[in-house]
Amino acid sequence: MNKVRSIWESGGKAVGGWLQMTGVLHAEAMARLGYDALVIDMQHSGTEFDSAVAMMIAIENGGAEPFVRVRWNNPDEIGKLADLGAYGIIAPMIESADDARRLASAVHYPPRGARSFGPRRPLMRYGNDYFGRASDTIVSMAMIETERGLANLDDVLSVEGIDGIFIGPADLAVALGRAPKPDSDDPVVVDAVRMIRERVHAAGKRVGVFCGAGPFARAKLAEGFDFVTLTPDLAMLTASARRVLEEARGGET
Amino acid sequence: MNKVRSIWESGGKAVGGWLQMTGVLHAEAMARLGYDALVIDMQHSGTEFDSAVAMMIAIENGGAEPFVRVRWNNPDEIGKLADLGAYGIIAPMIESADDARRLASAVHYPPRGARSFGPRRPLMRYGNDYFGRASDTIVSMAMIETERGLANLDDVLSVEGIDGIFIGPADLAVALGRAPKPDSDDPVVVDAVRMIRERVHAAGKRVGVFCGAGPFARAKLAEGFDFVTLTPDLAMLTASARRVLEEARGGET
Amino acid sequence: MNKVRSIWESGGKAVGGWLQMTGVLHAEAMARLGYDALVIDMQHSGTEFDSAVAMMIAIENGGAEPFVRVRWNNPDEIGKLADLGAYGIIAPMIESADDARRLASAVHYPPRGARSFGPRRPLMRYGNDYFGRASDTIVSMAMIETERGLANLDDVLSVEGIDGIFIGPADLAVALGRAPKPDSDDPVVVDAVRMIRERVHAAGKRVGVFCGAGPFARAKLAEGFDFVTLTPDLAMLTASARRVLEEARGGET
Amino acid sequence: MNKVRSIWESGGKAVGGWLQMTGVLHAEAMARLGYDALVIDMQHSGTEFDSAVAMMIAIENGGAEPFVRVRWNNPDEIGKLADLGAYGIIAPMIESADDARRLASAVHYPPRGARSFGPRRPLMRYGNDYFGRASDTIVSMAMIETERGLANLDDVLSVEGIDGIFIGPADLAVALGRAPKPDSDDPVVVDAVRMIRERVHAAGKRVGVFCGAGPFARAKLAEGFDFVTLTPDLAMLTASARRVLEEARGGET
Amino acid sequence: MNKVRSIWESGGKAVGGWLQMTGVLHAEAMARLGYDALVIDMQHSGTEFDSAVAMMIAIENGGAEPFVRVRWNNPDEIGKLADLGAYGIIAPMIESADDARRLASAVHYPPRGARSFGPRRPLMRYGNDYFGRASDTIVSMAMIETERGLANLDDVLSVEGIDGIFIGPADLAVALGRAPKPDSDDPVVVDAVRMIRERVHAAGKRVGVFCGAGPFARAKLAEGFDFVTLTPDLAMLTASARRVLEEARGGET
Amino acid sequence: MNKVRSIWESGGKAVGGWLQMTGVLHAEAMARLGYDALVIDMQHSGTEFDSAVAMMIAIENGGAEPFVRVRWNNPDEIGKLADLGAYGIIAPMIESADDARRLASAVHYPPRGARSFGPRRPLMRYGNDYFGRASDTIVSMAMIETERGLANLDDVLSVEGIDGIFIGPADLAVALGRAPKPDSDDPVVVDAVRMIRERVHAAGKRVGVFCGAGPFARAKLAEGFDFVTLTPDLAMLTASARRVLEEARGGET
Repeated sequence: MNKVRSIWESGGKAVGGWLQMTGVLHAEAMARLGYDALVIDMQHSGTEFDSAVAMMIAIENGGAEPFVRVRWNNPDEIGKLADLGAYGIIAPMIESADDARRLASAVHYPPRGARSFGPRRPLMRYGNDYFGRASDTIVSMAMIETERGLANLDDVLSVEGIDGIFIGPADLAVALGRAPKPDSDDPVVVDAVRMIRERVHAAGKRVGVFCGAGPFARAKLAEGFDFVTLTPDLAMLTASARRVLEEARGGET
Repeated sequence: MNKVRSIWESGGKAVGGWLQMTGVLHAEAMARLGYDALVIDMQHSGTEFDSAVAMMIAIENGGAEPFVRVRWNNPDEIGKLADLGAYGIIAPMIESADDARRLASAVHYPPRGARSFGPRRPLMRYGNDYFGRASDTIVSMAMIETERGLANLDDVLSVEGIDGIFIGPADLAVALGRAPKPDSDDPVVVDAVRMIRERVHAAGKRVGVFCGAGPFARAKLAEGFDFVTLTPDLAMLTASARRVLEEARGGET
Repeated sequence: MNKVRSIWESGGKAVGGWLQMTGVLHAEAMARLGYDALVIDMQHSGTEFDSAVAMMIAIENGGAEPFVRVRWNNPDEIGKLADLGAYGIIAPMIESADDARRLASAVHYPPRGARSFGPRRPLMRYGNDYFGRASDTIVSMAMIETERGLANLDDVLSVEGIDGIFIGPADLAVALGRAPKPDSDDPVVVDAVRMIRERVHAAGKRVGVFCGAGPFARAKLAEGFDFVTLTPDLAMLTASARRVLEEARGGET
Repeated sequence: MNKVRSIWESGGKAVGGWLQMTGVLHAEAMARLGYDALVIDMQHSGTEFDSAVAMMIAIENGGAEPFVRVRWNNPDEIGKLADLGAYGIIAPMIESADDARRLASAVHYPPRGARSFGPRRPLMRYGNDYFGRASDTIVSMAMIETERGLANLDDVLSVEGIDGIFIGPADLAVALGRAPKPDSDDPVVVDAVRMIRERVHAAGKRVGVFCGAGPFARAKLAEGFDFVTLTPDLAMLTASARRVLEEARGGET
Repeated sequence: MNKVRSIWESGGKAVGGWLQMTGVLHAEAMARLGYDALVIDMQHSGTEFDSAVAMMIAIENGGAEPFVRVRWNNPDEIGKLADLGAYGIIAPMIESADDARRLASAVHYPPRGARSFGPRRPLMRYGNDYFGRASDTIVSMAMIETERGLANLDDVLSVEGIDGIFIGPADLAVALGRAPKPDSDDPVVVDAVRMIRERVHAAGKRVGVFCGAGPFARAKLAEGFDFVTLTPDLAMLTASARRVLEEARGGET
Repeated sequence: MNKVRSIWESGGKAVGGWLQMTGVLHAEAMARLGYDALVIDMQHSGTEFDSAVAMMIAIENGGAEPFVRVRWNNPDEIGKLADLGAYGIIAPMIESADDARRLASAVHYPPRGARSFGPRRPLMRYGNDYFGRASDTIVSMAMIETERGLANLDDVLSVEGIDGIFIGPADLAVALGRAPKPDSDDPVVVDAVRMIRERVHAAGKRVGVFCGAGPFARAKLAEGFDFVTLTPDLAMLTASARRVLEEARGGET
């Protein structure tokens, strides 16, 4: 079964990484560190299908569950990724029950949804009874990050076949007229994030949030979030590279 | 003129980064942080020519000088990389004056060397008088990292057409029967590194060293090294990813 | 003229292969075996545009007509593939006359359709009068594989500019509440396949079907199908690899 | 600021190149020749995201502004390209005010539009205040090239957030029932092109046109066009290759 | 520990597959069938480092040990592949004790050999004590396939640090003046293969052989071979594709 | 049979193109213009095996013979390219009879040479009797372009198994202490080129030369050269792009 779903069903919370850089080396290395899932960002990075499949294999080989934040809530993109071994789909810019139904439909085979049959890599991992078990192997989360999405949150939550909501705080902040800064402490953003978490939980679903730093993620887990993603790879690398350069030069970069 | 050479000629010391990961995003991002050069490692990573050329362009666009640690001291590999815009060549496993002459020959056009003419990207940057100025645009360093290389250091230093020596401390430690740990404080390794530095300087050449951490690099600059490379990208990323995960989980990874 | 269309116009039936694996070697090798067309599956495999264009050239060089089962019935995807040398478009999940018109519109230039002009590779093959002959060079087939598609079959068939229907039996079986097994002998599926064939022929169009094995394909040709595709490459390879391994081990895998 | 916008704001006209071939070498070489912008054609060529990002870096390194003619007017494609460093978006087949609003919405952050936040490469170039300046860094042009687009030109021009109109004369000719020949002198096409230019200028916006040859482009600049793109790379190369072959063979190809 | 070495040490014989096609899908699929190792052929196929690393991860993820038949007996190529996770090296065209020493030197760290330190992926799998255990994790085999190699077999076998000999029957046949047919029953070839096996075993080393078909491989295992590789992927696929096409057409291809 | 060899054997002279840019579109387009061969330059460009195989297929599909100027005179590189469908090998920097024998050995199977057997793509084109005909299908030329090569020309010409000599005038000029300008009219270079041609013909072999422009190539054909290559793709494209830009701007670039 899906590792993230297993964690949830046994009462735990899952911690994921966020990959904006394309490549197998760091994907496998991060997976081996103990992240429960690694999310390949295909919306705001250069990663496309060719690289994504190699990365998903590397993540699986490293012991984490391969997730993808897809470019858009399109059934063809989602289906193709699921066929190549994505076991988590995070769909951006969900704004209505229709959007949510479209996502659910893309993730599940009939009669629950309309996913087309051709599961190349899942057949390898799950064998011939994959068709009957497919819905259990994949996690789907709808991103709430716009004004309209916020307004229609309850409608979105009423849709069956989606595991929950994933909050994109940068876009959410922008939607609320605030600056898109990481781990924002702007009260307007903080309130919106808390409100979403509470309503998702009230609807009996899972809620996750994109985090910029470890302590912030820890606080979110303590608040009850079911899923957090940690600092994106490129951000971690750039911050380290800046610090190391300062150390080497003695402060004068 | 080559930025690293300019720094040296104006009495400064150059600081480089070390790229084991393939990809343009972090290469450009690191270049923009102020590294003087970024070394693409083609010996101990998956990077090959196709990716290397895109990365060299990204590094140049970010303002750093693109260097390559080549897979081997082969004139065809070195010539092809120089044609694609590598302005620094760090050749591994140099063990003799013959090896050093082979490197020098690969880097310079006749009559100084035997480089074949076809400078695709340098012609774009330096224009039609590139042929006459080529030797000034490129830096070449021979890696001393084996027992035989150590024994023949003076012979290597006697070869014209090479800017200096770059120390690979991991292989050097192994060659001396020590463990290949980063920034080793093993006296045998420390002594060998110091000895190489002194003899290179005595010969009037430049000396560089691969470093694992910022403070170590700073100490090496203080000791007089002309060039240091800082923590490799993959090592920085993995260390950050481990730390962030621990922060998020509260210590329990 | 398109080889498959030529076969049809001279009263024959066409036999195609099905490519789920990305790569030029086997694409060209299979083309040289005498397949009339090879269908690159871009819906349920990892193949994307970069690889597809190299594969289409290899298929053409091997003497078969390059077809693509597109990811989705999108005019931009279809147009780009046609510009790169796809001479057959098989569009999945067609469910209505609107869907069919969208496909027809993507395949034909005005006034028949709305394809945008920029035929990179077809200009090479067909020369400057390609614009006037384009519709003859390309075959388009709509996949009927859902409940809604089945219900609207006659509407779909009434749309001009599409050569016919291609049946996806796995999704069709799922749509009918049956298991998606290859070459299904489930009477419900068998009946639906026969019914579609008859209605397509009654409408004067061509009908094709995806087959899992050679004898099944032969039976379908005997029943009157105009186009069959044979065992997908990955399925053939996996079956052979399993059998060879059993032979080598004497039955104990 | 965007180079093309700067030129416009200082009263000048911009000249771009058109790239149908995938690759960094010629992209950088052409950028260094002095083109103001180079347009990567992702609609009618094989170029996709992986190659496009390397090409955009090469173009920027060569001193031109990287533009993209996108495959379709889709917000996810446009957003991803902008995140990777496209500073000009030319969207094909715009036919209505709705289409135009969709384009404007994809290009601008809220509240002007609905672009999602994740500007990987623009953050490197413009730094942390990119969010506030983003709209100034990017140029967007809607292509008018269909009957419906022509009919709705004034509606399209009434939409805010788009810099202007880019004419695709081949599709426009086809839409008008004419042959899609380059730099058409067909009076129907010539009139339509002039009419569009005049109405765009009357609306206070910028107008560009795709040209097949240098003198034609010069004439268009003289007529008042704000932006011209010159002969596509593949067309230039093929014409030269034909001529050189004839010269070598003495006329007998 | 290396799976093939484990099998050998527990008295078993290993069965491998042979990959001439580039791609992760079939590599992983074949690994999951129960092959002990899969050999990526980098000498007689298009596969290079970029693809090989993704394939090695896929093979490992599928449960087989990733081997490579390298392009040449070059330390830089062998070291780079080992750094990327090749746990078996099959080196072609070994003709002398010098050749064999060169192979052994490339595979082992000092003092046994001269491999340079930078084990990117092995560090992930084996952790920080990899350096001390590296020699146990990798299998190396020298190919005997030329007249000179045959003449110097005993010299080759006397070299320490190589696990054994891998026979390439096609080149061996050619060397002996025979046709390069698969699984040759030519007595001259059969005798040479038997003689090599006997002498390798007499020297206390392992012997493997490239096989074209399952039954032939089984016979070789029965004769005492420690390692067989089965039908290459492309050969299996082409044979199946031909057979299926004949079945579909009723014999008339 | 090889098209270039056929032309030669029927008393003609062959005209080739020279590809420094990586990509299939222009490779196929140029092949269709009527070039007898297209030479993929792997020494002074970014093209490597992955791209080269796709380009060779495209060239073959366009009707020209695919040649490669290899990176170096290495048997593994030459063998791998021949296995992937290179039917002409131009080896740089040949300086002695030993170098020439190494080239001849790489191109021919035993007993003429030492090529290893594994002809992936040639088997597709030539079928199962390829082994016996291989030497007829491939053309090999040694580049004379250094002082030492010039001095040893007669030795090189005495080696069997090579079709002739290909002159690299840029490196040759440099070797003679002259500037590496295209189509040099420097008498020293002109004399050397003529001398080589005469001595190659005196030895009964073929001679080719790299040309920068059509009229120069025509003159060389008139002088008796058996093979000329015309302006490299990147040079043609850059020259056209400069001219077109000047035309558009009215002289002011």
